[in-house]
Amino acid sequence: MYSKEITDLLRKNISLLSDKDSSKYPYIPQQDSQLPRLNSLRRIIELVKAIVFPGYFGDGSYCSNMQEYFIGVRVEELYGLLCEEIGFGLQSFAKDEVPDVRHQSEVIAMKFIDALPEVKRVACTDVKAVYDGDPAARTYEEVIFCYPAIIALLHYRIAHLLLVLGVPVIPRIITELAHSRTGIDIHPGAQIGEYFSIDHGTGVVIGETCIIGNHVRLYQGVTLGSKSFKFDENGNPLNIPRHPILEDNVTVYSNSSILGRITIGHDSVIGGNIWQTQSLPPYSQVQQGRAVSMILTDGAGI
Amino acid sequence: MYSKEITDLLRKNISLLSDKDSSKYPYIPQQDSQLPRLNSLRRIIELVKAIVFPGYFGDGSYCSNMQEYFIGVRVEELYGLLCEEIGFGLQSFAKDEVPDVRHQSEVIAMKFIDALPEVKRVACTDVKAVYDGDPAARTYEEVIFCYPAIIALLHYRIAHLLLVLGVPVIPRIITELAHSRTGIDIHPGAQIGEYFSIDHGTGVVIGETCIIGNHVRLYQGVTLGSKSFKFDENGNPLNIPRHPILEDNVTVYSNSSILGRITIGHDSVIGGNIWQTQSLPPYSQVQQGRAVSMILTDGAGI
Amino acid sequence: MYSKEITDLLRKNISLLSDKDSSKYPYIPQQDSQLPRLNSLRRIIELVKAIVFPGYFGDGSYCSNMQEYFIGVRVEELYGLLCEEIGFGLQSFAKDEVPDVRHQSEVIAMKFIDALPEVKRVACTDVKAVYDGDPAARTYEEVIFCYPAIIALLHYRIAHLLLVLGVPVIPRIITELAHSRTGIDIHPGAQIGEYFSIDHGTGVVIGETCIIGNHVRLYQGVTLGSKSFKFDENGNPLNIPRHPILEDNVTVYSNSSILGRITIGHDSVIGGNIWQTQSLPPYSQVQQGRAVSMILTDGAGI
Amino acid sequence: MYSKEITDLLRKNISLLSDKDSSKYPYIPQQDSQLPRLNSLRRIIELVKAIVFPGYFGDGSYCSNMQEYFIGVRVEELYGLLCEEIGFGLQSFAKDEVPDVRHQSEVIAMKFIDALPEVKRVACTDVKAVYDGDPAARTYEEVIFCYPAIIALLHYRIAHLLLVLGVPVIPRIITELAHSRTGIDIHPGAQIGEYFSIDHGTGVVIGETCIIGNHVRLYQGVTLGSKSFKFDENGNPLNIPRHPILEDNVTVYSNSSILGRITIGHDSVIGGNIWQTQSLPPYSQVQQGRAVSMILTDGAGI
Amino acid sequence: MYSKEITDLLRKNISLLSDKDSSKYPYIPQQDSQLPRLNSLRRIIELVKAIVFPGYFGDGSYCSNMQEYFIGVRVEELYGLLCEEIGFGLQSFAKDEVPDVRHQSEVIAMKFIDALPEVKRVACTDVKAVYDGDPAARTYEEVIFCYPAIIALLHYRIAHLLLVLGVPVIPRIITELAHSRTGIDIHPGAQIGEYFSIDHGTGVVIGETCIIGNHVRLYQGVTLGSKSFKFDENGNPLNIPRHPILEDNVTVYSNSSILGRITIGHDSVIGGNIWQTQSLPPYSQVQQGRAVSMILTDGAGI
Amino acid sequence: MYSKEITDLLRKNISLLSDKDSSKYPYIPQQDSQLPRLNSLRRIIELVKAIVFPGYFGDGSYCSNMQEYFIGVRVEELYGLLCEEIGFGLQSFAKDEVPDVRHQSEVIAMKFIDALPEVKRVACTDVKAVYDGDPAARTYEEVIFCYPAIIALLHYRIAHLLLVLGVPVIPRIITELAHSRTGIDIHPGAQIGEYFSIDHGTGVVIGETCIIGNHVRLYQGVTLGSKSFKFDENGNPLNIPRHPILEDNVTVYSNSSILGRITIGHDSVIGGNIWQTQSLPPYSQVQQGRAVSMILTDGAGI
Repeated sequence: MYSKEITDLLRKNISLLSDKDSSKYPYIPQQDSQLPRLNSLRRIIELVKAIVFPGYFGDGSYCSNMQEYFIGVRVEELYGLLCEEIGFGLQSFAKDEVPDVRHQSEVIAMKFIDALPEVKRVACTDVKAVYDGDPAARTYEEVIFCYPAIIALLHYRIAHLLLVLGVPVIPRIITELAHSRTGIDIHPGAQIGEYFSIDHGTGVVIGETCIIGNHVRLYQGVTLGSKSFKFDENGNPLNIPRHPILEDNVTVYSNSSILGRITIGHDSVIGGNIWQTQSLPPYSQVQQGRAVSMILTDGAGI
Repeated sequence: MYSKEITDLLRKNISLLSDKDSSKYPYIPQQDSQLPRLNSLRRIIELVKAIVFPGYFGDGSYCSNMQEYFIGVRVEELYGLLCEEIGFGLQSFAKDEVPDVRHQSEVIAMKFIDALPEVKRVACTDVKAVYDGDPAARTYEEVIFCYPAIIALLHYRIAHLLLVLGVPVIPRIITELAHSRTGIDIHPGAQIGEYFSIDHGTGVVIGETCIIGNHVRLYQGVTLGSKSFKFDENGNPLNIPRHPILEDNVTVYSNSSILGRITIGHDSVIGGNIWQTQSLPPYSQVQQGRAVSMILTDGAGI
Repeated sequence: MYSKEITDLLRKNISLLSDKDSSKYPYIPQQDSQLPRLNSLRRIIELVKAIVFPGYFGDGSYCSNMQEYFIGVRVEELYGLLCEEIGFGLQSFAKDEVPDVRHQSEVIAMKFIDALPEVKRVACTDVKAVYDGDPAARTYEEVIFCYPAIIALLHYRIAHLLLVLGVPVIPRIITELAHSRTGIDIHPGAQIGEYFSIDHGTGVVIGETCIIGNHVRLYQGVTLGSKSFKFDENGNPLNIPRHPILEDNVTVYSNSSILGRITIGHDSVIGGNIWQTQSLPPYSQVQQGRAVSMILTDGAGI
Repeated sequence: MYSKEITDLLRKNISLLSDKDSSKYPYIPQQDSQLPRLNSLRRIIELVKAIVFPGYFGDGSYCSNMQEYFIGVRVEELYGLLCEEIGFGLQSFAKDEVPDVRHQSEVIAMKFIDALPEVKRVACTDVKAVYDGDPAARTYEEVIFCYPAIIALLHYRIAHLLLVLGVPVIPRIITELAHSRTGIDIHPGAQIGEYFSIDHGTGVVIGETCIIGNHVRLYQGVTLGSKSFKFDENGNPLNIPRHPILEDNVTVYSNSSILGRITIGHDSVIGGNIWQTQSLPPYSQVQQGRAVSMILTDGAGI
Repeated sequence: MYSKEITDLLRKNISLLSDKDSSKYPYIPQQDSQLPRLNSLRRIIELVKAIVFPGYFGDGSYCSNMQEYFIGVRVEELYGLLCEEIGFGLQSFAKDEVPDVRHQSEVIAMKFIDALPEVKRVACTDVKAVYDGDPAARTYEEVIFCYPAIIALLHYRIAHLLLVLGVPVIPRIITELAHSRTGIDIHPGAQIGEYFSIDHGTGVVIGETCIIGNHVRLYQGVTLGSKSFKFDENGNPLNIPRHPILEDNVTVYSNSSILGRITIGHDSVIGGNIWQTQSLPPYSQVQQGRAVSMILTDGAGI
Repeated sequence: MYSKEITDLLRKNISLLSDKDSSKYPYIPQQDSQLPRLNSLRRIIELVKAIVFPGYFGDGSYCSNMQEYFIGVRVEELYGLLCEEIGFGLQSFAKDEVPDVRHQSEVIAMKFIDALPEVKRVACTDVKAVYDGDPAARTYEEVIFCYPAIIALLHYRIAHLLLVLGVPVIPRIITELAHSRTGIDIHPGAQIGEYFSIDHGTGVVIGETCIIGNHVRLYQGVTLGSKSFKFDENGNPLNIPRHPILEDNVTVYSNSSILGRITIGHDSVIGGNIWQTQSLPPYSQVQQGRAVSMILTDGAGI
């Protein structure tokens, strides 16, 4: 049993921390509705991974000769979870009140299920692209099973699909789960084509209004960001197209930044460590002009 | 049952690996005291998150009308866990032996609880700052619920408070937990003001002796580091002020490095990819001078 | 019970997703063999950590006076798990069919156990190197217990050992587990000497064919990468030596990239943010030549 | 991958087992509504135990000086869980369709919460009765913490309350959970007074229409059962009062059976191993008339 | 760290307890082969329950319109687990060495799967019998979902099937799992017909060589046991038919014992608390002859 | 968010249930000290099971050639857990305040460890006795692995040892864990010799002051109980010798009760369903004198 001195102090602070006077803690809105649940969203991701790459992901036994059962139970579970979590998302975060949340959630969940074969088809192209771009990759199996880019891209493709279907906040949570795990931060609003690949990946940032064509390849530390914001009359930053467009067959090497609503023409190559803020025509090749370093062979300290 | 050949080999290596002769494994001290436990430290973080942002974090049911119960049990559990883990930290890692570890731990835990309302108040300002800085953020709720910067900053603020209260090692573990999850590496010794925000965040490093004012904003890949070390007579690096001071209202864009004990004056803006090793007066604006790249439109290989 | 409309849609998509026609989903091979299991690989890592640093890692009670029991059960469990997982790896991913997988797995597992004392000895040197390089580190204990570099390096040293012993894919998974946790991406094929250290670490990439001497130290964001690929007659990138060699006593500061099969001579120092694509003689010191930035004190917007 | 022979056999039986033709499996109704969930019912029991006996049950820290927080969060969680599970029970098992399940569930849950102080008061009397009846019991604390009768009676009192409030099936599940754990099988429909106690308890059966007064005590193996059933015109057994009435201060020793709608008058004692099918007046004492055994001292085999 | 005194004592006893000299601990054979794993056997039972009663048991979502997927994955998982555990059973406990354990296990597992529809059909009849015999049962759903007899009988029917298929020890473990949970102890070797029911059940014992017809009903505490053993020349008890035969339509009320290789003719009723050691013709009715008790109305103490 | 009506009702009852006025809930003492923890006690039992029967119990890998490691870590963990839980027991339940709980706990734990080889030796004899008494038992391995009596007896032997060493309450909890699992209720105070066996076991009760010799065998439903209590001047039942003494080689068949401080002479056999309240000389044989049942062959209803 704690002493009276301790329990008095605990009680005093419990009271202070439970104070609902919004002037005390002004930017923390009271939160009473059921938020989407992280564990369910994680399960949703696990289910899609198992459905798209059966045998590679998904706990439990798997035999390809009987895969319709394996996929069947997962599609059914996925549908049920989507209905619930989309519902929580719509209730907590939709800008305007949704008249029939339950029905709306079911409609969105059905559209999501209906798009899964296409998600799988595109995921195939990402596997191909990652494999083709890495001399260290020996087989497609290895790429699917080990490469973080595959995970990050699947998270993104799920999140983007949900965003397009009108689900608030959940897409962002899904890409943040991948960000936390892989260091690759793709905004779900970005539009990304087929055969997309990222190598190593840590530090990659792809902004909300990016448009990326097919057969694009990025390396670690690449930022596709905005150069500056425009503000509205209230001083709030405006959410307008502000990130670059990369056309087909563009490659960007490590640690380069491409900033602002510029267009990198198709079949261009951006070398490493480049700071690019202007559009480029097709077939451009950019590399650091010269060594911006000084060699001191006399051994003097830096 | 393994064969004799196998068990002989296992036994031989068990014996070699159990050798306590310190010349064999010289830099691994025998560790017999109870170290702080990772699971308890994780629980401490979870409790503070739920106490500071009730309804957003914390498993179990939540109704804002009854939040003093929700907060009450968590504050009580938090106090108990802090006493234990601070005790383990003091026993294992305090420089000088602590005369009454149990009492000292309770005193520190009480001070920590007493500081929680202030931690919550400052966390509010971080929410506001993250929201204001991101055109993609729609509501405060979304910022609290989804943004990794909020997590990283709360870890830092808890860790810094414990460090100031004299707890060894645990602060570092707490910021490393956030580092692992978000890619944001803030040393608990850094001093950071209110309304602090970080966008994307992967690769951010904030060194031990940094001093950061209010309304400062950083982007991914920013290093606030030391330029070089000074060494003592034994060749050990000296732990002296060696990281930059950022005054109020400073913004640093992605992948820039600010190094050494320099001062960036208030209301300055450091563009992306800058290597800054000298102090700057207030209202400075620094950006890359010119395109240090060469465009090769002839399609020649890099 | 779902309506017929819903179950029809679910069934239709289950059927489409279960389609084994390889032209539909061309780059996803049917996967029927038992892949190595992530949970077992994670357990293997945990066991090695507890064996190498007993008292720091490993759940369960620990008393250094009785550590042969602590180590004994873990070595035995490790041996058993290695036999299983190496077997799954050889079956699923070996280039040529392995005639007696079970025996081959046991032989490799025994060699792995036999190499553990040497792994422990080298891990000691990494502890020493991390400690010596960080003014913020107070004791060896703290370094072992808190520093992510120690974890990343131990993952690498385990993975490299397995790779040398001929185990496919598992080494890559083990280093990816560390990559996900620490942001440090070391290919298991790299060759790294003793007393190696990394500070902060997020964004570090060390390529497959790197050769790194003793007493080398890297900072966050350093890439030891390839400059370009060579392709074979089929357009596949060739897996040949393409990453740098760093001789003894080289230090590379944050966010620098060293690219291609070049050699950085011993006792060299590469400053931060350098883009290095040419070999350097011993005792070289490279730093950014001059401020490539423009200071605008007039407050004009970027 | 399983062979075609195996997968054919699996498929054939999957098909047979999925056959929904009700003539094949006639007494297994298709079950599509959400049944009450065992884990939630177990949690409900755990919550009531912690609320009624705080400090004895309930994970998490407990300090009696702060027990309103401990009890507060549990009452809130309990209310929420009750609403859900009562709803599932009404939907799946109510005889007539319930017009507004959600509202009805909330009304019942509120009545349940409102009855908890009375449940606690009666539970006190059971503790007293168990303590008074067992020479081996040293303190009330020990009785609450260790004695299975306390658990079985609390399950019963919760279940009986829910039954009275009109909840179907869940009461039976709750008493079966106690039956499985303690071997004491009390039907939730039984009416049991205060200061009730059971010693050892394995094999005790108390039937649906029993009426038991105050200060009644039973020993292991006692059956309060029905002697025979009456049947309706369809041959179904009639659910009418068919179990005994035990008035106040009755004691029944081990392995006795009291059967049929008879009344055992107050302050009676039924010895062990008795077969009682007729009413008894108050203050009766029944014991086995004489040794119905034969002693063979000559050592002949049985 | 424990003191030397403590570690010496621990080491001494570890050594004594690890002594493999069989004269020290004579009846504990060294056990090195992999025994069947309890968790897997529990999972096998869970799978069969979900397959036989889909919607009543089995975690995860369930929709009867899609039940072939639900059943399909469980049959596949069941087959795999059976192969493994039957293999462990054959290796550890088969009387004679099994030449090809792996193949033999697969053959048995296939036969088990092939018998599942019949197991389900018979389980239906048990549901009907339990329902018909209990006035308190309102629906078949309730019987399946709540009644311990259903669980105990399904365990028995699985165990008996495995025993008939030649699996050692595992059948006994499966019925012991039900014994522990329900207090009903049915030996897997017993032969039990259709429409079998048990009410309450605690203390029921059904011996190895019992033969029970159809439509038999038992109450709590009934023993169908052996009266005495016959011994072989070594003094070991002989395993010969020694338990009773109950023909069709026999009912045995609570706490009665029927002992020895006797036959209770069809359509007989054995009342409660009967000690029956001789055969009875069909249509017999046995009840306690007269009250073997003495009523003391004078209140004298027992 | 719950309505004000609901939260008012919840608050009202939280307040009533948190009332510490002891006249409201008189027999529930405030409980503030740390009670022994069930999970730790369960772990203690698991450890002893694995130490006494290595290879049969204990998760994790096991190879008899290396069993000193297997046993070593478990003995060490056991010692640590015992110190903790014995301490909690002494603090919460010792009749007189213990002057140095920590030291006292360590002394008891050391004595417990020192007695383990003897516990193992006696457990061997129980295995032998169970095997010899059951015609269905094929091997010692099967007996150790499957028979509930082995578990119940090991719980008892651990609990009795702790009781003898002066540990309060914990012994009772340990035997109740076995009671719940097996239906066998042995008071830890009973004194039981070697080669003890129980068959089936559900409903067995062995009272606190029983004294049982070697080679004694019981069947299901046997009670070794007290016949009546003596009371002290306050009306509390006196805890004096009140249960029977069974000398060596006594067998008691199913459902018999032996009551009071009587002595059953060595080599006696008590048949089933006997009610024995008087001492018997050695070599006695008791069986039911004659059929106390009435056969009604005319088919009249009971």
